[in-house]
Amino acid sequence: MIRFDSDYTEGAHPRVLQRLVEANAVQTPGYGEDPFCREAAELIRSACAAPEAAVHFLVGGTQTNRTVIAHLLRPHQGAVAADTGHIAVHETGAIENSGHKVLTVPGREGKLDPEAVEALYLAHYGDASAEHTVQPGMVYISNPTELGTVYTLAELEALYAVCRKHSLPLYVDGARLGCAFVAEGYGFAELAKLCDVFTIGGTKLGALFGEAVVFTDPALARDFRYTVKQNGGMLAKGRLLGLQYLALLEDGLYMDIARHEVELALRLRDGLAERGWEFLIPSPTNQQFPILPDAVLENLKKDYAFSVWQKMDDGMTAVRFCTGWAATREQIDGLLAAIPKRQ
Amino acid sequence: MIRFDSDYTEGAHPRVLQRLVEANAVQTPGYGEDPFCREAAELIRSACAAPEAAVHFLVGGTQTNRTVIAHLLRPHQGAVAADTGHIAVHETGAIENSGHKVLTVPGREGKLDPEAVEALYLAHYGDASAEHTVQPGMVYISNPTELGTVYTLAELEALYAVCRKHSLPLYVDGARLGCAFVAEGYGFAELAKLCDVFTIGGTKLGALFGEAVVFTDPALARDFRYTVKQNGGMLAKGRLLGLQYLALLEDGLYMDIARHEVELALRLRDGLAERGWEFLIPSPTNQQFPILPDAVLENLKKDYAFSVWQKMDDGMTAVRFCTGWAATREQIDGLLAAIPKRQ
Amino acid sequence: MIRFDSDYTEGAHPRVLQRLVEANAVQTPGYGEDPFCREAAELIRSACAAPEAAVHFLVGGTQTNRTVIAHLLRPHQGAVAADTGHIAVHETGAIENSGHKVLTVPGREGKLDPEAVEALYLAHYGDASAEHTVQPGMVYISNPTELGTVYTLAELEALYAVCRKHSLPLYVDGARLGCAFVAEGYGFAELAKLCDVFTIGGTKLGALFGEAVVFTDPALARDFRYTVKQNGGMLAKGRLLGLQYLALLEDGLYMDIARHEVELALRLRDGLAERGWEFLIPSPTNQQFPILPDAVLENLKKDYAFSVWQKMDDGMTAVRFCTGWAATREQIDGLLAAIPKRQ
Amino acid sequence: MIRFDSDYTEGAHPRVLQRLVEANAVQTPGYGEDPFCREAAELIRSACAAPEAAVHFLVGGTQTNRTVIAHLLRPHQGAVAADTGHIAVHETGAIENSGHKVLTVPGREGKLDPEAVEALYLAHYGDASAEHTVQPGMVYISNPTELGTVYTLAELEALYAVCRKHSLPLYVDGARLGCAFVAEGYGFAELAKLCDVFTIGGTKLGALFGEAVVFTDPALARDFRYTVKQNGGMLAKGRLLGLQYLALLEDGLYMDIARHEVELALRLRDGLAERGWEFLIPSPTNQQFPILPDAVLENLKKDYAFSVWQKMDDGMTAVRFCTGWAATREQIDGLLAAIPKRQ
Repeated sequence: MIRFDSDYTEGAHPRVLQRLVEANAVQTPGYGEDPFCREAAELIRSACAAPEAAVHFLVGGTQTNRTVIAHLLRPHQGAVAADTGHIAVHETGAIENSGHKVLTVPGREGKLDPEAVEALYLAHYGDASAEHTVQPGMVYISNPTELGTVYTLAELEALYAVCRKHSLPLYVDGARLGCAFVAEGYGFAELAKLCDVFTIGGTKLGALFGEAVVFTDPALARDFRYTVKQNGGMLAKGRLLGLQYLALLEDGLYMDIARHEVELALRLRDGLAERGWEFLIPSPTNQQFPILPDAVLENLKKDYAFSVWQKMDDGMTAVRFCTGWAATREQIDGLLAAIPKRQ
Repeated sequence: MIRFDSDYTEGAHPRVLQRLVEANAVQTPGYGEDPFCREAAELIRSACAAPEAAVHFLVGGTQTNRTVIAHLLRPHQGAVAADTGHIAVHETGAIENSGHKVLTVPGREGKLDPEAVEALYLAHYGDASAEHTVQPGMVYISNPTELGTVYTLAELEALYAVCRKHSLPLYVDGARLGCAFVAEGYGFAELAKLCDVFTIGGTKLGALFGEAVVFTDPALARDFRYTVKQNGGMLAKGRLLGLQYLALLEDGLYMDIARHEVELALRLRDGLAERGWEFLIPSPTNQQFPILPDAVLENLKKDYAFSVWQKMDDGMTAVRFCTGWAATREQIDGLLAAIPKRQ
Repeated sequence: MIRFDSDYTEGAHPRVLQRLVEANAVQTPGYGEDPFCREAAELIRSACAAPEAAVHFLVGGTQTNRTVIAHLLRPHQGAVAADTGHIAVHETGAIENSGHKVLTVPGREGKLDPEAVEALYLAHYGDASAEHTVQPGMVYISNPTELGTVYTLAELEALYAVCRKHSLPLYVDGARLGCAFVAEGYGFAELAKLCDVFTIGGTKLGALFGEAVVFTDPALARDFRYTVKQNGGMLAKGRLLGLQYLALLEDGLYMDIARHEVELALRLRDGLAERGWEFLIPSPTNQQFPILPDAVLENLKKDYAFSVWQKMDDGMTAVRFCTGWAATREQIDGLLAAIPKRQ
Repeated sequence: MIRFDSDYTEGAHPRVLQRLVEANAVQTPGYGEDPFCREAAELIRSACAAPEAAVHFLVGGTQTNRTVIAHLLRPHQGAVAADTGHIAVHETGAIENSGHKVLTVPGREGKLDPEAVEALYLAHYGDASAEHTVQPGMVYISNPTELGTVYTLAELEALYAVCRKHSLPLYVDGARLGCAFVAEGYGFAELAKLCDVFTIGGTKLGALFGEAVVFTDPALARDFRYTVKQNGGMLAKGRLLGLQYLALLEDGLYMDIARHEVELALRLRDGLAERGWEFLIPSPTNQQFPILPDAVLENLKKDYAFSVWQKMDDGMTAVRFCTGWAATREQIDGLLAAIPKRQ
């Protein structure tokens, strides 16, 4: 069985693991107040060209989303998101559990349009009984999105312009951030100028786990460690996060892994397209959503793990293949060989 | 600088780390649905002589406490705890953030007396306007306690008898559980008969991180994975937890580490007692709370890290020394050598 | 200015007020533990032919919805509702503030289809990662709906059959319940057999305020007074609620008012239809949603208050007119006289 | 049976009721956006000599406390209160249900000492791991307290000085505010200068129900109507609150009722003292807490309702007698006649 059902099917990239092994016996204080975390935060601030940014390290994605959103909103406010947004769909109501409604608008291939945000904002304040409805208090996007698509720099600029116009903090969930950078050619420094908070996801790009949270405006991070602790996100051996981000960021490993994941995913995409298959959505990143016949999938699943995404008409199903740091060219070629041409 | 400020100053015990390294390239499904987690759960059920128990793995202690308590209580209920209980004091209100009051009663050296629980229960239901106050809905203890003390088997029996009499689930926070076992001579199987839920803490006993949650009555665990996900406690690479618990439990490493930690702590305790120093509380586990002169501490802190616990009269301070898996006899002897005899 | 913008523009029906005045000096215990509340609850049980039902009295609608829903759900569960449902749209996120997601499905003229509930239920449990999404835990409908439409008895039967099949408690928000009874010809006893909890709204049918909550299965109401108190819904002078429901229910005033409100609303509807105007939705109750030219509305609003509901194309707007207990035939005829025929 | 068990055993003072009756047929908009509420708010601002103050009207006390506190705090903050504070004891955990811990310190006869607040504040920020504990975010007091005692002007000044020094908003729960004014001789204008938010309780001083919330700094009230709606505190027929506060405040009725209640309570106090009985606490307001023999109480309860407060030694019990707007001198004298002299 070869697994393409997610990008977290193995442990960590060997160089990340090596870092943990090397520092294993070093003594440090707990809770992220160690030199490794400090150094990793400094690396991130430097990569972001944001010397004032506040950087915090958490363990997981849902944990980070609920913590950041709880930190940014007042009780009567909600987070605006695309209807396919992770917080709207796949976090078992973690945001609502924190007391906040997710205000969804239809996404465009998983992306949130500035026009949709503005329309929602204006509709809210144009309502004579606005106070009977949840006040939009921030904007959430994921980049890449849950559908593998990526915001262009122009799209981010337009979205952030609307957010700033209406004083809505923009939070970018970067669970697979490196893949967005590979696909669109921008990087940390550009992103840091176009949002208020973003995460650099480690889990899906070579780490055992980890989300680095970057507040480009440190004022927004005031008392954030309280919020992290309250939400169960403060790791006792916080150094594990600092060490992993050092390994990922100090000589470009993070982007190397992202390039590797995207390259293999595009190799799969191109191979499938050559064979005549279509896709649910055109993704330039490490998640691919081909539409394949159920009979083919039935056969495929004996040897390959993948995710069923959406039943289509006519005995076809859209599925998701994900490439992680450990995927190989040989695995992709083997997978392609197991999928027939469209007739 | 040698650190005794906590028992999470290093990484993992080498054998735990080795397990992670060996399995690093193995592919598994995510979110704890992998063979390692299944096998570790089976090991735990077996150690507990509780073949029906439900076992789940979470990352951290506060996360686990808020998740278990949110899972067990209805909205109008609170968790009864000693006033020194971790949930009452050191979790930044995580329980309240989940909507529940912690109903504290004065502890006895950190322990909760059955009489105090019963009195609180009877006072609640004896109140004509009981519904204007929070209903006791469960009981929380930590074992060892935050003060290093340990419940005897008889104390657990008496407490659990009161809990069952009043249908209050008993939850045991075992962040340092192995040390309790070493101190009092009972083990998993005995504990599993005397509570409804307990945790086997990994972070402070040789793991990188991890809390195994054992529901001795599986009915109480219904839908627990939803609650875990909602509270941000579901690790994508959940296998990391299974692997660590396998390493800790498959051939007794967990208890070996506990014995090592307690042995060194008692060596410190006895050495200090010999030197004439007194203790805030008599602890039989890996946390020791000697009362030392401020001048001695001032000198000591140049070379040793420890926690300030409580200012006493007359220029004395109670401090905490903790021994972790990596502490050595030499370190203890060095520490003792740095502390003068009482005059 | 004559107000049709809501059905709560005046105080109480004179007979309700009279009851409050008559009993003003009588001494009773507080918090709803008085003879008036007991007698009113008994009247309701009798009207519902549900001698075992648990009846509680709260002050307002949003308060009641958040309290009942918080009482019925576990933390990881959500309430299924039509996308136009009051809890989904007009309660400032009160349900989310209690920790729960409102799981919306598109309504049919404001009503929730059994097929939609079943589809959502099956989709949830058919999902391999169901625990990453909010579990449907109950069903919420309003009757009449927010659009003035009413469930037929057959529709309620079909919906409740699905709810029972999947063990989802059905909660009926009856803010204007009497109007539903007038429109469809059924009553308390029929409704009580087709749901688990429902409310008898007083505010919009002649009371100063008040919602009677009826749990047809008293087991669901266990500890409900705690939940009411916690949610700020326990009125110190609870007798005010008992007295008002006595006035409304002891000799049919509640249904008389409902008939009056509906009769006047239909008079308006028929008059507008005669003049050639169309409606956003065909409503058989005391809310009417005609689509009128902006120029007509501009003129009308000098003398009449109404609610803007939805901008339509071509300079037309759907508005809402509501009739309360105090509306008169003369007011309706005056309003009709002020609206020209469609050309 | 004559009831002294609370000060809400009857309906409203006749002049309050009269106001409701007179305006019953007047049409107004809902949700407190009516001329009566506007006029009442203006009266309050004028009485407070605080022309900029924001004034809102809610229905009940617990509702108001949870709403104000949820509005003022960030998620990781708690409200400092005396251990006898209403929010700490008698609101079924409404504050915790909103996500916040009540940080209690021992009260002095129900009052919160500035020293205790300062000590708690300094202890929090002096803790190296402050972020592991709940941050003090505001201060809550009731005046009169739950024990009937009243803050002197000097005590309020000292407390507010500490609050301002540490940027902790001070919130005064004035459920029986008028009685405090009678006892200590200050009034609205003095109080308004010595806190950030306070309530003028109506329920216990002649209204059917109602709490006026006064934010002396209107910036703190930003978006408060959203919070009120979300917490279920927005009354559809909000005018009922405006009308009652007009009746109470436009020509001094509120203070007349307070004087009446206090006068009768002191008559009871003095009569009991003359008979040789002692009190749990010296209260200058409308709640009195005499300590009486159980045998006397057993006899008394055939004709009088009162509250059992605390069992004392030697067959004695502290009980509470409350005087409401409708209590009479004859009732007090009758009660006194039924209580024997101490032997």
